[in-house]
Amino acid sequence: MSKPDFSKVLIAQGGGPTAVINQSLVGAVLESRKFREVHRVYGAFHGVRGIVDEEFVDLTQETTHNLEMVGDTPSSALGSTRDKPDLKYCQEIFKVLQAHGVGCFFYIGGNDSSDTVRIVSREARAAKYPLRAVHIPKTIDNDLMVTDHTPGFPSAARWVAQAFMGANLDNWALPGVYVGVVMGRHAGFLTAASALGKKFPDDGPHLIYVPERAFDTDRFLADVKATMDRHGRCVVAVSEGVADADHTPIAAKLAAQAEKDAHGNVHLGGGALADMLTEVVREKLGFKRVRGDTFGYVQRSFVGCVSDVDQREAREVGEKAVQFALWGDKDGSVTIHRTGFYSVDYQLSPLEAVAGKTKVMADEFISASGTDVTDAFRLYLRPLLGSGMPDAYRLRLNRVPKILKARR
Amino acid sequence: MSKPDFSKVLIAQGGGPTAVINQSLVGAVLESRKFREVHRVYGAFHGVRGIVDEEFVDLTQETTHNLEMVGDTPSSALGSTRDKPDLKYCQEIFKVLQAHGVGCFFYIGGNDSSDTVRIVSREARAAKYPLRAVHIPKTIDNDLMVTDHTPGFPSAARWVAQAFMGANLDNWALPGVYVGVVMGRHAGFLTAASALGKKFPDDGPHLIYVPERAFDTDRFLADVKATMDRHGRCVVAVSEGVADADHTPIAAKLAAQAEKDAHGNVHLGGGALADMLTEVVREKLGFKRVRGDTFGYVQRSFVGCVSDVDQREAREVGEKAVQFALWGDKDGSVTIHRTGFYSVDYQLSPLEAVAGKTKVMADEFISASGTDVTDAFRLYLRPLLGSGMPDAYRLRLNRVPKILKARR
Repeated sequence: MSKPDFSKVLIAQGGGPTAVINQSLVGAVLESRKFREVHRVYGAFHGVRGIVDEEFVDLTQETTHNLEMVGDTPSSALGSTRDKPDLKYCQEIFKVLQAHGVGCFFYIGGNDSSDTVRIVSREARAAKYPLRAVHIPKTIDNDLMVTDHTPGFPSAARWVAQAFMGANLDNWALPGVYVGVVMGRHAGFLTAASALGKKFPDDGPHLIYVPERAFDTDRFLADVKATMDRHGRCVVAVSEGVADADHTPIAAKLAAQAEKDAHGNVHLGGGALADMLTEVVREKLGFKRVRGDTFGYVQRSFVGCVSDVDQREAREVGEKAVQFALWGDKDGSVTIHRTGFYSVDYQLSPLEAVAGKTKVMADEFISASGTDVTDAFRLYLRPLLGSGMPDAYRLRLNRVPKILKARR
Repeated sequence: MSKPDFSKVLIAQGGGPTAVINQSLVGAVLESRKFREVHRVYGAFHGVRGIVDEEFVDLTQETTHNLEMVGDTPSSALGSTRDKPDLKYCQEIFKVLQAHGVGCFFYIGGNDSSDTVRIVSREARAAKYPLRAVHIPKTIDNDLMVTDHTPGFPSAARWVAQAFMGANLDNWALPGVYVGVVMGRHAGFLTAASALGKKFPDDGPHLIYVPERAFDTDRFLADVKATMDRHGRCVVAVSEGVADADHTPIAAKLAAQAEKDAHGNVHLGGGALADMLTEVVREKLGFKRVRGDTFGYVQRSFVGCVSDVDQREAREVGEKAVQFALWGDKDGSVTIHRTGFYSVDYQLSPLEAVAGKTKVMADEFISASGTDVTDAFRLYLRPLLGSGMPDAYRLRLNRVPKILKARR
């Protein structure tokens, strides 16, 4: 098959936004513009949906300065989509690429997006259309295979660590039970990141529940009670995706329980996991001050909490994708490989090894108790959080002898 | 009455923690230690509760360096309390102050705390015990009388602005309806701060609901529909305390409605306002992508999002409290007064003017529509957010002509 015509390059962003997804976009655009064979860099609006609708913008006309500013801005600057293309959808994509004479296609996204790249790549080969298709990794879930970690995860992890650092201080000042629910349906990496907010031995989160371990409500209540007995307070981090031994999500289970208790056909709406867990703690353990937050969308798009390591790597995977595409002779997914403490290198890995697959936390990252992380995980995550992590300090306790109570 | 014996000074922190409450503590401790008549600076553990329990620490033994680090750490380093003392409780406080020979009492807190200072001050006068009692202002709600604003509010406001800046970008990438619920039972200042995250005319929050205006669910639905028609997306900021024209909180009203619909005795638990509002939008307007977050505790204790102006002023109200107490001859509440764009000065105001009272947003800060803020509010809030506010950038839209769709 002849070499693709690289005069037109197309870039799109898919799935949930991250704090650094635009770094990858900007890295790919600026690097593409350095190649003399590239004449036009197109961006598709709202991912694959924008491709089938032919909603393209010409990124060649962007100033370098504005691109740099967009790179520093969180969330997908080209817009995103939740469409998960099937074969027919991918054939539509391919038709549009052909019509516009696109010789190179970059898709920034998670495992679904890598699968789209895989199918489009296969369609092009089948049609003998010379196309280079490269997947650029991105997801706060950190659940892609092969790669050491995914751009977007470190910044979200930093947000979660800083949020729990604050939640712990708040809970120390006004003691009670606090439950924070973190994003992550199948992989617990982001929830586990809460452990990086701990400094002193009695700091929270005291309990961390990830989807990699079966969640048992009675066991959870016993854990909370034991922590309250020990510290007089308890901070809990829970993945939204925790499920019981039969793989039934706890959120669904507690909602069904509430329905049953009500002897009616109750529509609970968005009854959040945090609300249901705090309700169970209040009811079964009788503690007074029980609070819960579901961190929601803020954790992935908060402006002003970002890891500089994440920014740099997100930029580099975009740049490397272009180099792999224009200098190499095969399609693939850009993967990050750790080469030092801390340094990385980038490779182009086969799409088949990444596409549609999900990585979860390794056993060595989860403590034997199942409610904490190990030092191996701390060592894995800490360098990703970047420089300038905030730190929490305490007063030293020089007690003053009592006078009135001492007399009694 | 003779001059108080200033050899022992007592400091305590009350109510909800803020990002800068420890700046006030450290300001008061360091300034006290500069006065030769002060020999010991005590801190009470967990506010007034710690006073009646005689749980004191000797802050004189702290290193200046550790105090500085604690000052930069959010949440109350001495611990806090939700106790709202009545007369009897205040008499207990007074007894302990007498027993320990405390001549000067500083309480860092909101309107309840200022009321405690007022009663203790009165009790001391009645008992002819020479005591200087000064209230140091703090609350993220910004609802204290007399003062231009309250330390703690600017940092929380900055967090809310940055959260909505991100929520808007996220909602732009994946369009739909987004509802973010912000703290504030009676005053809408913090919710209104969401407007400071807007940059472009079509940015969200498109609708802002504060407790100062009656909330009507039908009107809300009409507002959301109009915004969706106009922008194809809608970001909403709502105070947790919004209530209808009869002052019934909307959260309670929607919960009761859900109960009624279920024809059962449903216990909704912590059914959050965000969940209920998104459910109403989904049901009545039929939009598909409707999301909601209740920002919860993260907004007041997040580590790593702080206004430098707020830090500086929180430090200064602590310092000034000590100066007013030791150089002056009356009790009071430290208040902030704007003297330039932007500069402030501090005064000691009568406790009676602040204690137990609640300030709400001035009419001039709320737009005629009731769902937006005015430029007067932007001008009021912007300098408080401090330096280094993040900024959001967009790609410029240089459209590429369609090929396939154009042919049709």
